[in-house]
Amino acid sequence: MRTGVWLVGARGSVAVTSIVGASALRAGLAEPIGCVAEHPALDRRALPGFGDLVFGGHDVATTSLVKRAETLAAAGVVPGRLVAALHSELSTVDEDVRPLPHAETPARTAAAIQADLAAFRARHELERVVVVNVASTEPAPEPHPAHASLAALRAALDGPQTVLPASSLAAYAAFEAGCAYVDFTPSTGARLPALHELAEARGVPYAGHDGKTGETLLKSVLAPMFAMRRLAVRSWSGLNLLGGGDGATLADPAANAAKSASKQRVLGETLGYVPDGHTRIEYVPDIGDFKTAWDLVTFAGFLGTPMRMEFTWHGCDSALAAPLVLDLARLTAAAHRNGRVGPLPELAFFFKDPLGEVEHGLAAQFEALAAFTASLR
Amino acid sequence: MRTGVWLVGARGSVAVTSIVGASALRAGLAEPIGCVAEHPALDRRALPGFGDLVFGGHDVATTSLVKRAETLAAAGVVPGRLVAALHSELSTVDEDVRPLPHAETPARTAAAIQADLAAFRARHELERVVVVNVASTEPAPEPHPAHASLAALRAALDGPQTVLPASSLAAYAAFEAGCAYVDFTPSTGARLPALHELAEARGVPYAGHDGKTGETLLKSVLAPMFAMRRLAVRSWSGLNLLGGGDGATLADPAANAAKSASKQRVLGETLGYVPDGHTRIEYVPDIGDFKTAWDLVTFAGFLGTPMRMEFTWHGCDSALAAPLVLDLARLTAAAHRNGRVGPLPELAFFFKDPLGEVEHGLAAQFEALAAFTASLR
Amino acid sequence: MRTGVWLVGARGSVAVTSIVGASALRAGLAEPIGCVAEHPALDRRALPGFGDLVFGGHDVATTSLVKRAETLAAAGVVPGRLVAALHSELSTVDEDVRPLPHAETPARTAAAIQADLAAFRARHELERVVVVNVASTEPAPEPHPAHASLAALRAALDGPQTVLPASSLAAYAAFEAGCAYVDFTPSTGARLPALHELAEARGVPYAGHDGKTGETLLKSVLAPMFAMRRLAVRSWSGLNLLGGGDGATLADPAANAAKSASKQRVLGETLGYVPDGHTRIEYVPDIGDFKTAWDLVTFAGFLGTPMRMEFTWHGCDSALAAPLVLDLARLTAAAHRNGRVGPLPELAFFFKDPLGEVEHGLAAQFEALAAFTASLR
Amino acid sequence: MRTGVWLVGARGSVAVTSIVGASALRAGLAEPIGCVAEHPALDRRALPGFGDLVFGGHDVATTSLVKRAETLAAAGVVPGRLVAALHSELSTVDEDVRPLPHAETPARTAAAIQADLAAFRARHELERVVVVNVASTEPAPEPHPAHASLAALRAALDGPQTVLPASSLAAYAAFEAGCAYVDFTPSTGARLPALHELAEARGVPYAGHDGKTGETLLKSVLAPMFAMRRLAVRSWSGLNLLGGGDGATLADPAANAAKSASKQRVLGETLGYVPDGHTRIEYVPDIGDFKTAWDLVTFAGFLGTPMRMEFTWHGCDSALAAPLVLDLARLTAAAHRNGRVGPLPELAFFFKDPLGEVEHGLAAQFEALAAFTASLR
Repeated sequence: MRTGVWLVGARGSVAVTSIVGASALRAGLAEPIGCVAEHPALDRRALPGFGDLVFGGHDVATTSLVKRAETLAAAGVVPGRLVAALHSELSTVDEDVRPLPHAETPARTAAAIQADLAAFRARHELERVVVVNVASTEPAPEPHPAHASLAALRAALDGPQTVLPASSLAAYAAFEAGCAYVDFTPSTGARLPALHELAEARGVPYAGHDGKTGETLLKSVLAPMFAMRRLAVRSWSGLNLLGGGDGATLADPAANAAKSASKQRVLGETLGYVPDGHTRIEYVPDIGDFKTAWDLVTFAGFLGTPMRMEFTWHGCDSALAAPLVLDLARLTAAAHRNGRVGPLPELAFFFKDPLGEVEHGLAAQFEALAAFTASLR
Repeated sequence: MRTGVWLVGARGSVAVTSIVGASALRAGLAEPIGCVAEHPALDRRALPGFGDLVFGGHDVATTSLVKRAETLAAAGVVPGRLVAALHSELSTVDEDVRPLPHAETPARTAAAIQADLAAFRARHELERVVVVNVASTEPAPEPHPAHASLAALRAALDGPQTVLPASSLAAYAAFEAGCAYVDFTPSTGARLPALHELAEARGVPYAGHDGKTGETLLKSVLAPMFAMRRLAVRSWSGLNLLGGGDGATLADPAANAAKSASKQRVLGETLGYVPDGHTRIEYVPDIGDFKTAWDLVTFAGFLGTPMRMEFTWHGCDSALAAPLVLDLARLTAAAHRNGRVGPLPELAFFFKDPLGEVEHGLAAQFEALAAFTASLR
Repeated sequence: MRTGVWLVGARGSVAVTSIVGASALRAGLAEPIGCVAEHPALDRRALPGFGDLVFGGHDVATTSLVKRAETLAAAGVVPGRLVAALHSELSTVDEDVRPLPHAETPARTAAAIQADLAAFRARHELERVVVVNVASTEPAPEPHPAHASLAALRAALDGPQTVLPASSLAAYAAFEAGCAYVDFTPSTGARLPALHELAEARGVPYAGHDGKTGETLLKSVLAPMFAMRRLAVRSWSGLNLLGGGDGATLADPAANAAKSASKQRVLGETLGYVPDGHTRIEYVPDIGDFKTAWDLVTFAGFLGTPMRMEFTWHGCDSALAAPLVLDLARLTAAAHRNGRVGPLPELAFFFKDPLGEVEHGLAAQFEALAAFTASLR
Repeated sequence: MRTGVWLVGARGSVAVTSIVGASALRAGLAEPIGCVAEHPALDRRALPGFGDLVFGGHDVATTSLVKRAETLAAAGVVPGRLVAALHSELSTVDEDVRPLPHAETPARTAAAIQADLAAFRARHELERVVVVNVASTEPAPEPHPAHASLAALRAALDGPQTVLPASSLAAYAAFEAGCAYVDFTPSTGARLPALHELAEARGVPYAGHDGKTGETLLKSVLAPMFAMRRLAVRSWSGLNLLGGGDGATLADPAANAAKSASKQRVLGETLGYVPDGHTRIEYVPDIGDFKTAWDLVTFAGFLGTPMRMEFTWHGCDSALAAPLVLDLARLTAAAHRNGRVGPLPELAFFFKDPLGEVEHGLAAQFEALAAFTASLR
């Protein structure tokens, strides 16, 4: 079951933490903390093991993985001793991280991506490859008529214009290469009718969107709690302070808007109504790779009595995301192997903005996930 | 389905808020916020309606319900306009609140309690009566050999000594009178082999212990979240600041110990291990009928990265408890009607320290509750 | 020493709370909690007493003060029993609250304001009148050449165009009428060279800007603490959630910007450098007249060790502001009586964005205030 | 001005951080963050420089300073690069850290301590030595008649019994050896009439008690803020969660009581009344060398409106304490040189429980400190 994990944004914090972690797990240097697939309630028999995963990817940056890992160690994201112990493993993966292709037309760029995927697969004799997007969040793209059908899209990609955002072009190339695709970011990715058509045509599954790493994870258990107890949530306001690379990107209002909408979706879906309030994202460089989120929830109890709760979450986004990237790669590869095609709503547990009409309460999502793993061969 | 709700501690804040609320709901003056039985996922057809409930109870205090309700209104627990509108309803209930009997032997005290219950039932032509303990928390009692069997207990109750704490004597009397019993407090109540034997003999159900109104409610969704995500909780520490009547009682170290143990149980049961830390309870009169709980959770993520979350819950305990008292009375009465005998583990959703071997995650408890309501006729 | 207090925005929450409070203090129905002038370290001998204050003002709204006070009582801002006891006092003040004049030219509007001030003074035989702006925050106005000198301003006011924002026109009219002026808001008020010239010409003092009621009050003691301890503040981020009338106004980006700048000024002035981070203001209707502010401060200790503190402030802005309005009216009247002309930097204690080159640490400001009161005759 | 700093508890976290830091400052490897004496408002001319300080001390532990420093680096208390760069400096200090003497009588133990101090002074040709107690907090000792006078104490020390707690015996020996003494802990130290008599007889100054490193530092600016604003503090409750060595000691109820009393003193002294509430200390190993303190303050505003604030302080106690240890050593040495004898109330800025009748507001304490430094020659 040798399985390739092709990371778009392979030199970013999430990707490097994933690669360091998988190497450490394979070497027996770490416990699989945060790895959902290792939960006793899930059936792991059909999943590739940590030792079966082979990493590669694309990035515009060129800093070596070892250097990036050392930076993460200095920031407290990964232990320095692991980076020191895994130098040669990281250098090996480095050879499979390629510059992100850019050609005169989108079609040619896609072809170059496909060629990289095919070469990676052949070089390592991989049974299959899962492409995982962990690049920076994109602004929401302009709608384009070519998004509506595969035929229109193919025609448009041959022209010189940008038709698809990078995340969607990556999905296009992945599907064409027969690879499953996971979008861990709020970017568009595979969420276009033309790409859905392509996934079906090529017989590959896909999953997304936007890994549920912190504040939204809490919302996905707290909002159902208020709902089950029939307490009336009046307002839910939050501030996210981020210092890492994605923080600077999200400070851009367009990306911020995409992310904020994704973060509030769980409230309407689990409460059945949308309370007052917004979630703001702000870039504060000193906070570094950690994120501090503060939320205030005001609610009414019996006879309207006003009450409130607040929480502060101080987590390391990359360390929260990386084990989920491994989980998603393993689960999506197994789904592909089992002949699943198109969106995988059973993986909603992992996402802020899951594909399909799914439950938004975390406990229900976990049950769906457990049932999914039990169905795999 | 006229159903009696006999409140032990009928002039306390929880009881008075329950009575005001039930009267307001019956009169159409309030919405059933916080009433779990009104959740669309539960089947209400077999439950008595708010209009079917008739209240009475015991208390050592003598202040009228109207006066107590006015005090609660001044403290922001119930709206003053409701108290003003419900004067006559409260005065009517007042006639059914009797001084707590106290005779020379426990057996005679129990007989007097039974007589009060029988008179209440006859006076209002009630189909059945549920006794609900909402009195102040007791210190954990000394073990006594007579707790082990009904025969030994009966013999001991005839002597002059205190054999049972008040909550257990109330359960004894309730069972003897053919009434179901609910313990909303952490006191001993029906949790003795002798009383279990009696409940079986009399064919009545019982439920408990310790209503899940605030911090533990949060724990029951947050601890499963950490478990599902395989994050390793290292410590969970809390401080509860209470100003109301129960606060003063719980400041007593013995009662405090009983309550704190009840509050940490959910962690071990849902995480599978017990993290560092304790929950402290402290009495701060200025906080009044509200409670502020602060919890700090430290946890390790992928590769051991240390992270943390904290929350503050600022709730009105009486307003959180009262709708659950109504829920429990309705559900327990229906269980009794359906021939259920002994402990009701399906009501674990409501309790910090539920009876039986049950799930401790809130979502699983809610499912069990929904299935239970669907099974009732 | 009968002293008039003319409130611009006399039917707003701050004004009504000030009027209810002054009436209650005069009637002996309340303690002067929050009244700085009553601090034993200040010399009150030269100040008018609560019983010397006579209230009037302008407002565009027409709801009676009694109605407004009842609304505030329902929201928990003032005690209902005080409103009930002070009906007739509030109705009397109501007669002195006039519609805000609006004429064809700014000069005529100002003349109408002056006429109202003169009539108020004559009607009540007042020794002097202090005009206090407690109206909603204005957006920052466009610069205008007429702001630079009194002569140019006078010429421009005779035209049909808006030359001054409302707060500045009120200051103009106050000065022309020989009245001192206090700006409790972040609006422009008297902060224009032309108005400074006028205050000097008329021999009247003025004070401002932006009452220090919550988060900035905390900053004014916490920032000096970090400075005195030589701890290096790296970032200071905040979110203010407001539900009251001013919240909706401040949600307007232009007003928000004015207010936020005012709130961060204390950091640069007391730390000597400006850390990362911003203060956001957000309107959340459910929070009502209360305000919840959350701030996160990250700082470095010895050898660069990263540390952090956060605070949540949950206060009622009107109840925090009202006693300061009384303080400022009393202190400014006494300054006027003592012949003080132009800005009063000694009142910096009360303001987020004080006039002049002043200390920004609260303790130093308090000492300056105490020295000021000691100097008054 | 070569000045010895003799640390009681020289292998503890505070001591080691102080030694690493002083070495780093001397070598130009770090900025003096957190060093109050470097504040521009203080006059440093009479103080020994960082390069003038020579370290030694007593400890029962024997782990080398390098090992201890490496442990602190792993815990994030000091930067690993500094420890690596300062190996030889730390090893040199190690030679001056001696086992804590213990003889058959207290008098002989004291004589052995004096001998160590004299040898240290001679070996390094020091102008003077300041003894600083940074050992673990002791339980409050039993009162003893010999504490009342120097003559009685001398007689008692010759017997076999324990007359003085370790901190006081250290002060005794320091004074006999002509050394100034600083108590950075809440232990008894020099606070006994007999020891005061001895300090006067030997002409040495002393300072204490209990370094103000976190929560109490905040109280010393927040309580004066409430006082200056005449807001009525109703309750002030706190929970301190500590994981370091001192945490385990303070979990002992007797030491906890001593510390908690010290922490609440500032409230009564600055507010003029003691609000409801307590400060609890709890040991949570996972928190390590950091400390998380949470405080809730409830207060009344104008017309009694209830409001609240809470704060969380997450600091590294050793990193907060170490620069103050350097400050105190430098300031106390200069006081000694200037002929100061007995308690030094001007150093109240540094302590939770300062000696003498002093101001408890931080700003007033800072002014007293600045005036003190200006008076030194």
